[in-house]
Amino acid sequence: MIELCEVGPRDGLQNEKKQVTTGDKVKFINQLIAAGVKKFETASFVNPKVVPQMADAEQVMETLPDRNDVTYAGLVLSRSGLERALSTKVDRLHVVSGTSDTFNRKNVRRTVDESVEELTAVIEDAGVAGRPSAAILSTAFGCPYEGAVDRKRVFQVAETFLDVGVQEIVLADTTGMANPQQVSETVAEFKEKFGDEVPLGLHFHNTRGLGLANVAAGYYGGVRRFDAALGGLGGCPFAPNAVGNASSEDMIHMFQEMGVRTGIDLEAMIATAKWLEGLMEKTLPGMVMKAGAAGELSEAR
Amino acid sequence: MIELCEVGPRDGLQNEKKQVTTGDKVKFINQLIAAGVKKFETASFVNPKVVPQMADAEQVMETLPDRNDVTYAGLVLSRSGLERALSTKVDRLHVVSGTSDTFNRKNVRRTVDESVEELTAVIEDAGVAGRPSAAILSTAFGCPYEGAVDRKRVFQVAETFLDVGVQEIVLADTTGMANPQQVSETVAEFKEKFGDEVPLGLHFHNTRGLGLANVAAGYYGGVRRFDAALGGLGGCPFAPNAVGNASSEDMIHMFQEMGVRTGIDLEAMIATAKWLEGLMEKTLPGMVMKAGAAGELSEAR
Repeated sequence: MIELCEVGPRDGLQNEKKQVTTGDKVKFINQLIAAGVKKFETASFVNPKVVPQMADAEQVMETLPDRNDVTYAGLVLSRSGLERALSTKVDRLHVVSGTSDTFNRKNVRRTVDESVEELTAVIEDAGVAGRPSAAILSTAFGCPYEGAVDRKRVFQVAETFLDVGVQEIVLADTTGMANPQQVSETVAEFKEKFGDEVPLGLHFHNTRGLGLANVAAGYYGGVRRFDAALGGLGGCPFAPNAVGNASSEDMIHMFQEMGVRTGIDLEAMIATAKWLEGLMEKTLPGMVMKAGAAGELSEAR
Repeated sequence: MIELCEVGPRDGLQNEKKQVTTGDKVKFINQLIAAGVKKFETASFVNPKVVPQMADAEQVMETLPDRNDVTYAGLVLSRSGLERALSTKVDRLHVVSGTSDTFNRKNVRRTVDESVEELTAVIEDAGVAGRPSAAILSTAFGCPYEGAVDRKRVFQVAETFLDVGVQEIVLADTTGMANPQQVSETVAEFKEKFGDEVPLGLHFHNTRGLGLANVAAGYYGGVRRFDAALGGLGGCPFAPNAVGNASSEDMIHMFQEMGVRTGIDLEAMIATAKWLEGLMEKTLPGMVMKAGAAGELSEAR
């Protein structure tokens, strides 16, 4: 059994030009809940002047149905974001830190150490408020400015967050630079260092066509929790024509074909991806929504 | 070290509406030779009424440079095709048989057994003429009409061809139905049955986003020879909006990033993919040509 964390409502929409209404964001999430998705990154509590697509984070959380069986995660980069998140019914904080200074400075105007300091406080405060946190380490497989990121540095950041009680580490390939060999090695080293008991998630983009190859490498390394975005929503700020997140329905399709349980109704998911394509008024990069599932046979006329 | 067999000039162009001139086909191949590609499926010796894109097979072969260090393979489905191929300087015959009857009947109006009978004669005749053959087994990972194809059946066809002296087996996922788990299992069983000494190649399409995931699974299973088409050229006759072959430059990029030697100049290959995009007058599905290589850093302005 694998777990999908659907990041389309956050990482997907945040990188799309089109502003989606609160109502449509909730429709997006509700359709996927009906398809069996149990975990979402629903919103980002960041400065609405910087990320206008996420300005309605509180309203999204307010409008979402109360579901004990579904986890709503909210992205938080600072203590002020945490305050906003705690005012909502968000189940889980996703605190995000870069692992390379150049990227982190450009993204949040802080060095990695400064982000880590701020976010360890966030994690502790969230814990006091009774909300668990996961730490998302961006550029963990490479930085678009600095190139290779030292794995030791990535694990050092992970360790600091684990020490203050974060419940999960997600290694994020923010700009689609990872390859399957690197994923295998990173996962093996992570497990060697932290043990199998630390929940590890992976987050890939399909920028260079390796999204699902990297997911498969992670799966064979023992990872069972993956971020993805419906339809492959989102883009790449570094390459205007490049695609976004690994596509949720293509990933679920892959696991189904591999004989791995997902708990998700692929057909319902594809229908939602087609609805999303209409909403976004553009062709999305998801492939199974165009080709049909492998098991869907043609008629031999 | 891995070996690419560039099938763009055959499997790619055959599935594109646009007719490409002989001169441009040769330019396509020549540019890739300069980039370091050593093996091509250059043409198909089939009925030009059925596949007009391949009508100039003889002229393509005639115009190509004489190169001892490059292998030109020609696709052949029957004895009449072999005659045409033998009249050219083609280095290697690629005989193609389906492994599911419904697909093979629709493709060449023969059962699998009938194709195998015809093609064993082709292989023997080619051998007498001093030309080696490889057998490409289409629908080896699934048939768009029948669904799953029994691996035993696939291996039985392979064995028949090996018995008459074919020098290589290529398992082809003709319509993009394979998944990494299936690839691992198939490769392992193939090696168990035929031993490591029988050269095995793999041919994937990216129809459902799994092209490179399947290539990686094959690589980790010990396969070192892969078909791909520049830019992901070609389409899918069963799904008009679906993409074609796994993209050569995306695959070479993946292997480079994995630290695997390819002998190919990726930059020159990407330049050729962009030239091809101009020639085809449409956006090709290749991703690295849009995003740039992972190692190509952005400037932190």
